[in-house]
Amino acid sequence: MNCELCDRDSGEVLYRDNFLRVVLVTNEPDYPAFCRVILNAHVKEMTDLSAADRTRLMAWVFRTEAALRAVLNPDKINLATLGNVVPHLHWHVIPRFADDAHFPAPIWATRQRDGVVHRVEALAERLRAALES
Amino acid sequence: MNCELCDRDSGEVLYRDNFLRVVLVTNEPDYPAFCRVILNAHVKEMTDLSAADRTRLMAWVFRTEAALRAVLNPDKINLATLGNVVPHLHWHVIPRFADDAHFPAPIWATRQRDGVVHRVEALAERLRAALES
Repeated sequence: MNCELCDRDSGEVLYRDNFLRVVLVTNEPDYPAFCRVILNAHVKEMTDLSAADRTRLMAWVFRTEAALRAVLNPDKINLATLGNVVPHLHWHVIPRFADDAHFPAPIWATRQRDGVVHRVEALAERLRAALES
Repeated sequence: MNCELCDRDSGEVLYRDNFLRVVLVTNEPDYPAFCRVILNAHVKEMTDLSAADRTRLMAWVFRTEAALRAVLNPDKINLATLGNVVPHLHWHVIPRFADDAHFPAPIWATRQRDGVVHRVEALAERLRAALES
């Protein structure tokens, strides 16, 4: 099986345990604080997990949301698990700002404007600290 | 406050309790089985809810996913809570098919093709039965 989420971290690791990892996405120039929560195992759908494992995965999605809110104070958080291209469970956790490239559309829609790129110094370190708090 | 999710059911109600409702979306012609799980209260972000309420809301998102899988057998389920336009918590639960209008892109991206519209007879009744099982 050839799966990029099995083969690579796919971002800068902010947290990792034996079940999942939280990474800062490094190839979305409009969204430098875009994070993903990636299940370690190659599982396709949330309802393929046990209820306990779903809760464990979502707890880290929400921890990531809380960390992003604490560090960036975005106008909105967007959460999504799609997996149409890579059917290995991963959650997109995206801080959105009213002046970003796509707002209020989803980031997958047509760009609305050049958009302000909201950068924060030492972002990975600050997110790691927030995730541990 | 003027909020369409406070003011209207916003779809055909499949399930409702004092905390949330599950509706079949009626204005997405490409995706006749598109469902939404809508919190009754006007709350903006998942991390504005208590952990118990987050779990309660997600349990119905996953019940809706399971019902859609049972009734439609889609190629993938897409889950998302965005709320950039309407900042009142609602989850999109979207059954996707390899030959639909946007696959493998998100439904908010540019259409890929005319796409097959996957219709099921008596869909609302079948989803209600699956949600109750």
